[in-house]
Amino acid sequence: MTESLNQVLAQVDRGMEESLGRLFALLRIPSISAQPKHAGDCRAAAEWLRKELADLGFEASVRETPGHPMVVAHDDKPSSGPHVLFYGHYDVQPTDPASLWHTDPFAPTLTRSVDGRQVIVARGASDDKGQLMTFIEACRAWKRVHKALPIKISVLIEGEEESGGVNLMPFLKANAQELKADVALICDTGMPNRTTPAITTGLRGLVGDEIELQCASHDLHSGMYGNAARNPIELLCTILGNVRDATGRVKLPSFYDGVQEPAETVRAQWRAIFPNDDLTLGPVGLSQAAGEQGYSAVEQVWARPSYEINGISGGYEGEGFKTVLPAKAMAKVSFRLVPGQNPEKIRDAFRAYVKSHLPPDAKVTFTPHGASSGFAVPQDGPYLKTALKALSDEWNTEAVSIGCGGSIPVVAEVKEALGLDSLLIGFAQDDDRIHSPNEQYGVESFHKGVRSWVRVLAGLSALA
Amino acid sequence: MTESLNQVLAQVDRGMEESLGRLFALLRIPSISAQPKHAGDCRAAAEWLRKELADLGFEASVRETPGHPMVVAHDDKPSSGPHVLFYGHYDVQPTDPASLWHTDPFAPTLTRSVDGRQVIVARGASDDKGQLMTFIEACRAWKRVHKALPIKISVLIEGEEESGGVNLMPFLKANAQELKADVALICDTGMPNRTTPAITTGLRGLVGDEIELQCASHDLHSGMYGNAARNPIELLCTILGNVRDATGRVKLPSFYDGVQEPAETVRAQWRAIFPNDDLTLGPVGLSQAAGEQGYSAVEQVWARPSYEINGISGGYEGEGFKTVLPAKAMAKVSFRLVPGQNPEKIRDAFRAYVKSHLPPDAKVTFTPHGASSGFAVPQDGPYLKTALKALSDEWNTEAVSIGCGGSIPVVAEVKEALGLDSLLIGFAQDDDRIHSPNEQYGVESFHKGVRSWVRVLAGLSALA
Repeated sequence: MTESLNQVLAQVDRGMEESLGRLFALLRIPSISAQPKHAGDCRAAAEWLRKELADLGFEASVRETPGHPMVVAHDDKPSSGPHVLFYGHYDVQPTDPASLWHTDPFAPTLTRSVDGRQVIVARGASDDKGQLMTFIEACRAWKRVHKALPIKISVLIEGEEESGGVNLMPFLKANAQELKADVALICDTGMPNRTTPAITTGLRGLVGDEIELQCASHDLHSGMYGNAARNPIELLCTILGNVRDATGRVKLPSFYDGVQEPAETVRAQWRAIFPNDDLTLGPVGLSQAAGEQGYSAVEQVWARPSYEINGISGGYEGEGFKTVLPAKAMAKVSFRLVPGQNPEKIRDAFRAYVKSHLPPDAKVTFTPHGASSGFAVPQDGPYLKTALKALSDEWNTEAVSIGCGGSIPVVAEVKEALGLDSLLIGFAQDDDRIHSPNEQYGVESFHKGVRSWVRVLAGLSALA
Repeated sequence: MTESLNQVLAQVDRGMEESLGRLFALLRIPSISAQPKHAGDCRAAAEWLRKELADLGFEASVRETPGHPMVVAHDDKPSSGPHVLFYGHYDVQPTDPASLWHTDPFAPTLTRSVDGRQVIVARGASDDKGQLMTFIEACRAWKRVHKALPIKISVLIEGEEESGGVNLMPFLKANAQELKADVALICDTGMPNRTTPAITTGLRGLVGDEIELQCASHDLHSGMYGNAARNPIELLCTILGNVRDATGRVKLPSFYDGVQEPAETVRAQWRAIFPNDDLTLGPVGLSQAAGEQGYSAVEQVWARPSYEINGISGGYEGEGFKTVLPAKAMAKVSFRLVPGQNPEKIRDAFRAYVKSHLPPDAKVTFTPHGASSGFAVPQDGPYLKTALKALSDEWNTEAVSIGCGGSIPVVAEVKEALGLDSLLIGFAQDDDRIHSPNEQYGVESFHKGVRSWVRVLAGLSALA
């Protein structure tokens, strides 16, 4: 096995120039899914991928949806190991503001970043074309050396991840039989620093709510009514400004029910990577973790539920001053949830808290904005252990399980539609500027990313 | 004296039809000071008033300022009593939204309001053309009957009260010698109900401040940072939502230093007029006084300092939801002040309170918005007593001293520039809709207003 693997890794190294060439070809296609004028480019990217996969021996097809098409490919000839479903997306974010790009976003360029890393600059370099190509090039190296993949592989590449992705779930459900596998592999995440490989095993969910308070029937003059008429902005501030206690803990009853502390071994790994909060907060101009006392910044983001006010509005917001005592005030609030928390119960607890603090003259209107649960990969499954081992071997550093403070909808969708757990493996860096001008992807991320997948596939093929 | 007075009052009654005709003529001039296209109309209103005053025997002139002109008139032939300076303003508010007016705002119309009162509907009917004409028509009746005023009278009518009034103070200072008198009479206030005449003896001042909090260096994704990065909206809410204690009292140190309780006799008068808060709050859809416990709604507005949040803004305020963790949040805050409070000390106390609640990662920027002291007329002066008696005689109801929750800048300005105390006497009603569509002034307000001034002038003439 080792010899077989080493041959494939050597092929990756030999073929890197050509691999980069193919990535650049894909990056040149401006497949911006949110902009209708790029619909043809989205289809071109799908077609390009279909051809690459077909050339590798996959049964590959471009499949229609009500939006941009999907690429589906299968190679079920191998007989050993589990059957994996790889997921990626070929669409990219819009590029505005154009003036902030140093080079054409769709003319990929090799350059060196300030820290000396060699990087590929282009829209989609990291999110997600560079990442998805690490997997395809790993498959290519296996095929080149051994004329076969080590395990059964299906590939699903969508074109609407950056623009709502409403067609993915129906497509998964409609094609559940065809897309069934043993585990999903998703390459859309990152590493906690330059040297430590990682698998994302926890994602936070989200429940959002909009709250509007009304007191008087119309805006009043603060001279004629100030003091006597209830001020809805002040009331909103008092309610929303006291959701956490002085230690940063959310005071809603039962808020932490079901929340699991991260395992001490995992916390120790995180502490080793982030010995202080400055590594996390310094780049955004902050120094102190603002959430619950007793948790580091990384723990607060990866493993603890949050409370945020995402927007607030009321009264006079323009230049100068108006002595208005407004009738209404509004805020948008959200809670990031960890596994074990029930979004609807959290919403109910929040609304009950607000209502319990309303004086008789105040009316409240709530508008829900989304509800999704947190997600966790069990730490003791064979796929996770195998993949961590493969990554550790490639990077010569112990791979870690990390969290992600945000949501990746496809994880919940493949679970619901196909019953699959996901392994989230990716090689992006925090400073890759995804969704921003001058998006980049390290050449090392790409090269060692391809090699990592070669090793993961080898590892999985050894499982029963 | 009584016979002399009764002759003048009878002349008022006889001449009411013509008095209304003159008021309508003034109301037809669209003297909107805030709109440059109406500059000529403002000048026409000033010229109209100059002519009326000159026809009455005043030495009257239209006087230039950097903005709209002033009207100044003097009649110093009488030898008895104090010399009064009457102040009013000929300019009016804009009329938008035009669609909400039932009649042309500058085509004054007599109609009946829902409660059966006969009212004059026009922009400026109450604020301030109707009110200032009560005084001029009172002078006219004295002149008609006795060929002379009972006391020396100077008149100052400005044209920028509704648009900042920045030229009044320089004008007062530049013409202080010419405008000197013993007391100022100002007709720009109202009555607490339909039947009780009043003199406004307390005005609240105002200190406004804008507060901007910044935490992170730029807007963040709430998934990547939510919990760990300080949320400036939440911080702003916590700070501004806890300025009052649970009893509605402002917690800033020394906030209530120097604040006088209203005299028990005055409170008793107020209680008689407003036996419950519903009279004050019911019309705006509220039922409970929201300020300090232990004070009625009217006491909270007329005699107690307030704390208001007049505007707040931060994060995403549009349709739908964004998972932004913003870098900044802003609020506009004001305190209405009563006599005894120092605006700058209150501002300092507020800023110190804010700063004392800032975590190390938060930066604050303050922008001042105005600072004026509260104002009180001494309750035992001879002019006040005389004027209250005159009003009581006219309305056959004991006249009361009332407060006003807002500011009337001219009161402080005539005090500072000319050394004059003011008597604020007016006949407007709370439902006159000043500054709003379908502004109105009761025919009774106008008629009994003229008669009231006839009596006030008679009363003042009897003083040494």
